[in-house]
Amino acid sequence: MPKINITDVILRDAHQSLLATRMRTEDMLPICPKLDAIGYWSLECWGGATFDACVRFLKEDPWERLRKLREALPNTRLQMLLRGQNLLGYRHYSDDVVRAFVRRAADNGMDVFRIFDALNDLRNLKTAIEATKAAGKHAQGTICYTVSPVHTVDGFVKMGRELAAMGCDSIAIKDMAGLLTPFVTAELVKALKDSVDLPLHLHSHATSGLADMCHLKAIENGCDTVDTAISSMAGGTSHPPTESLVAALRGTEYDTGLDLEAIQEVGMYFYQIRKKYHQFESEFTGVDTRVQVNQVPGGMISNLANQLKEQNALDRMSAVLEEIPRVRQDLGYPPLVTPTSQIVGTQAVFNVLTEKRYQTITNEVKLYLQGRYGAAPAAVNPTLQQQAIGNEDLIECRPADLLKPELERLTHEIGPLALSEDDVLTYAMFPEIGRTFLDQRAAGALAPEPLEPPPSNEPAKA
Amino acid sequence: MPKINITDVILRDAHQSLLATRMRTEDMLPICPKLDAIGYWSLECWGGATFDACVRFLKEDPWERLRKLREALPNTRLQMLLRGQNLLGYRHYSDDVVRAFVRRAADNGMDVFRIFDALNDLRNLKTAIEATKAAGKHAQGTICYTVSPVHTVDGFVKMGRELAAMGCDSIAIKDMAGLLTPFVTAELVKALKDSVDLPLHLHSHATSGLADMCHLKAIENGCDTVDTAISSMAGGTSHPPTESLVAALRGTEYDTGLDLEAIQEVGMYFYQIRKKYHQFESEFTGVDTRVQVNQVPGGMISNLANQLKEQNALDRMSAVLEEIPRVRQDLGYPPLVTPTSQIVGTQAVFNVLTEKRYQTITNEVKLYLQGRYGAAPAAVNPTLQQQAIGNEDLIECRPADLLKPELERLTHEIGPLALSEDDVLTYAMFPEIGRTFLDQRAAGALAPEPLEPPPSNEPAKA
Ligand SMILES: [Co+2]
Ligand SMILES: [Co+2]
Repeated sequence: MPKINITDVILRDAHQSLLATRMRTEDMLPICPKLDAIGYWSLECWGGATFDACVRFLKEDPWERLRKLREALPNTRLQMLLRGQNLLGYRHYSDDVVRAFVRRAADNGMDVFRIFDALNDLRNLKTAIEATKAAGKHAQGTICYTVSPVHTVDGFVKMGRELAAMGCDSIAIKDMAGLLTPFVTAELVKALKDSVDLPLHLHSHATSGLADMCHLKAIENGCDTVDTAISSMAGGTSHPPTESLVAALRGTEYDTGLDLEAIQEVGMYFYQIRKKYHQFESEFTGVDTRVQVNQVPGGMISNLANQLKEQNALDRMSAVLEEIPRVRQDLGYPPLVTPTSQIVGTQAVFNVLTEKRYQTITNEVKLYLQGRYGAAPAAVNPTLQQQAIGNEDLIECRPADLLKPELERLTHEIGPLALSEDDVLTYAMFPEIGRTFLDQRAAGALAPEPLEPPPSNEPAKA
Repeated sequence: MPKINITDVILRDAHQSLLATRMRTEDMLPICPKLDAIGYWSLECWGGATFDACVRFLKEDPWERLRKLREALPNTRLQMLLRGQNLLGYRHYSDDVVRAFVRRAADNGMDVFRIFDALNDLRNLKTAIEATKAAGKHAQGTICYTVSPVHTVDGFVKMGRELAAMGCDSIAIKDMAGLLTPFVTAELVKALKDSVDLPLHLHSHATSGLADMCHLKAIENGCDTVDTAISSMAGGTSHPPTESLVAALRGTEYDTGLDLEAIQEVGMYFYQIRKKYHQFESEFTGVDTRVQVNQVPGGMISNLANQLKEQNALDRMSAVLEEIPRVRQDLGYPPLVTPTSQIVGTQAVFNVLTEKRYQTITNEVKLYLQGRYGAAPAAVNPTLQQQAIGNEDLIECRPADLLKPELERLTHEIGPLALSEDDVLTYAMFPEIGRTFLDQRAAGALAPEPLEPPPSNEPAKA
C-alpha cells in the first residue's frame, strides 16, 4: 500500500502554467490508458483556466472534454480547481448557478472539487462545498498560502478547522506563488495535522525552486498527498517532477508505490506533445526566486511589465514593485492570486504613474473596499476606504447573499443556442465568448486558433 | 556567521554540464567583482574538462585563465576538480608530473583541490594529496558515490576515514550521476559525520531532480558545504540552483548568510551569457530519472546512442542498457565516471553487436583487468580476466609505481615551444592538441572555434 499519494496536475495546472492552458483534448486522450494505470490518487484535469481556454481559444466544449476524460480514465479520480463563488468565471455567481455548476460537473464525471477563495473568505466557499457534498463528491477545502504580517500558522490552522467544520473531506494548502520554504512548510503541515483530522494535500508551484524541498518536509510531517507534474511539463512556474518524487521516496516508509518506469514512459509522450505548443512557451522557463524577496508572484511581474510597456513606462518597474506591498497593506493583505493580484497590481501602477497615490482609484479597488469580494484578511486603510466609497454602503454579509437567483434569466437570455444546461453554464461563465462559442457551434464554424509550425533550427543570418 | 557554506560551480561544472565546457574567460571576468563579494565558501572554476576545452576549442591558455580568475576574485577560495593520478588528462602520470602540476596550480592561485579517482582507489589520490599539502593548500578527498552490491554506507565511511588519515582537509561526496536519494543521503552523511572529524561537502548533480532534496537531508544531518549553481545555469545535468537553497535556508539554523538579491543579479548576467553558447545546449535540458532505474548516467546514454547510430544499430539500445550492468559486474562494479563509463559502455556495445559476449575485448578493458587503472571495487570475473590478459602480469601495486619520472622527457620533447613549466604541463596533458596549441600560439595563429549567431525565432516554412 502506498504511504504517500500523488495528484498529477499534468492535464491542468502543468500546461496552464507553462503553455498558457492550451493543451487540447486530442493530445490528452491517447495517453489516458497509461495515465489511468499508474495509480495516482487523482488527476487534476479540469477547472482553473481550462474552461476559459477551451471556449476562447480551442473552441472545444469544456463539458465534452470532461466527459471524454471520464470515459478515458475510468480508474482514477478526476480533480478540478474551483474558484469558490466565482466558479470558473470572473465574478460572484448566485447560489443557484453555483449549485447547478457543481452538480453538472459531478454528473459529467468530476470526483474531487478543490475549492478556494482569493481572500480566504470561507463564506465564498460555503455553497460550493455544500453542493459538492450534495452530489456525493469529495470537497477539498483550500487554504491560499501567503506571507504578510497578519498571516500566521495559527491563522491557517484556524481556517483548516473551519473548513473541517464546513464538511470538507480534505484540506489543501495552495502555494500558488512559490512562497513556501521547507521549514515553514514543516511547521505549517505539522500544526494542521495536529489540529485537523483530515487528509492534507500540498500544492506548491516550483517557481522559486523550493517546492520539492517543501514536499519532502511536508511528507515528513504528515502530509498525505502532494501535487506534482510529469517531468516533461514540470519545473519553472509548473510543479516539481512526479518521477523525482517517486524516486526520492522509493523504498522508504513514504513510498508512493508508483511504477517509475511507467511514469517515465508517459513523460516521453508529453515531451513530444509539448513541442506542438512551442508558441506558448515563455522565453524564461527556469527558476525565479524573486518572489522570495518581494512577495510578488512571477506571473504578476510579467503582467505588470506588459502594462508598463503599453504606457511607455517600463522604467518605473522598480517603483511599482515597491508600491505593491503598500497597496496590499492598504487593502488588508489579500493573498495575491486571481483576481486580487490584478486588483493590487493595477492600482499600484496607477499610484506610480499619476502624481499622487490614489488620485485614481480603480473600480475594482472600490468594489473590494466596499466588501464585494468578501472580507479582507485584515482591516483596510479607513481613510482610503472612505475616499473610495463615499456615502455608499459597506457590505458585511456574504457577497452572494445580495445576488438574486439568476439561472432562469441566463437560460432565457441564451435561448435556443443552449442545447443543454451545460451550455447555459458555459454562457454564464463567459457571456460574450460563451455566446460566440455557441453561435459558432450552431453555424458549424468552430475553429481553434492555429498552431505555428515547429521553429526552425537554422541560425539567423548574422 | 553562516551555518551552511556554499561552493558555486558556475565557472566550472555548470557550463561543463550544460554547455560542453565552452564558457570563455572573457565572459567570466566582468562578473567576478560581484561573484567575489557574495561570500561563497569557494568558487569552483578550474579543472575537470575546462583545461581540455581551453586548449582544444577555445584556444585559451588554461593557466592564464587561472591567473586572471585569481586576480579578479581576491576574496574567494578558488576550487578545482582533479582526477587524481590522471590530473586533467586521460592517462596515469608519473609522480613528478603530478607534483609539478599541483605545485603550479597552487602557485597560479588555486586554493582547494578536490581530488578523486574513478575506482575510489585511494592509492591514485596519494601523490596529489601530498603535493597539495606540500603547497600549503586545501586537499579535499573525494568519495565517488555509486550504487552496487558491493558499495555500502560502511564502505564509504571506511573510505572517509582513510582519506582523513591521508591528511585531507575535508571530504566530498561526489554524486556525478544523480544517483543519491534524500534518505540515503541522510544516512550516508550522518554516518560520515559520526566517524570522520572533517568538514563534509556534497556535490550532487540535478539530473534526476533529486539533488536539492538530497542537499536538504544532508544539511539536516551535518553536511557543512553543498555545491550549487547560479539558477540560470542550474538544473538538468548541472546542479540545483544557488538562489533556491539560499532562500530555503534563510532565517533557519542553517542560514547561509548570503544575500539573495546579490545572487539574483549575478543570475541575470549568466542568463544572458548562456544565450551566446546556444549551439552547445542539448535539446533536452529537463529532469531525467532514468538513472534511478538503470544506474546508467545520462551522459553515458547519449554517448552510447551516438556510438550505436554510427553502427546503424540504434535499435540495440535497450540490449546495451541491459548489458551494461553485466559488464560492470564482470569488472567488479566500478563507479561509472570518466574513464570507467567509457570503458564499460564501449565493451557493452561490442558484447551486443558481435555474436558472442567478449568475442572482442577492448584494449581498455584489458588494461583495466590487468590492474592498470588501479584496484576494482570488488573481484573481477576471473575467467574473463584470464581470457583478456593471458600470460601477462597482473599489476597489484599502485599503477604509478611502475612509471618512471617523465617531466624531463616531456620538457625535452616539447622544447622551445614551451615558454614555461606551465606550457610543459599543458603538453603533458594533451600531447597532440597541446602541441598544436603551443605551435599556433608561437605562430600568432590561435583562433577559437566560431560561435553561431543566435537562432532565428521565425517558424520554419511548413
Ligand atoms: Co496551481
Ligand atoms: Co560534477
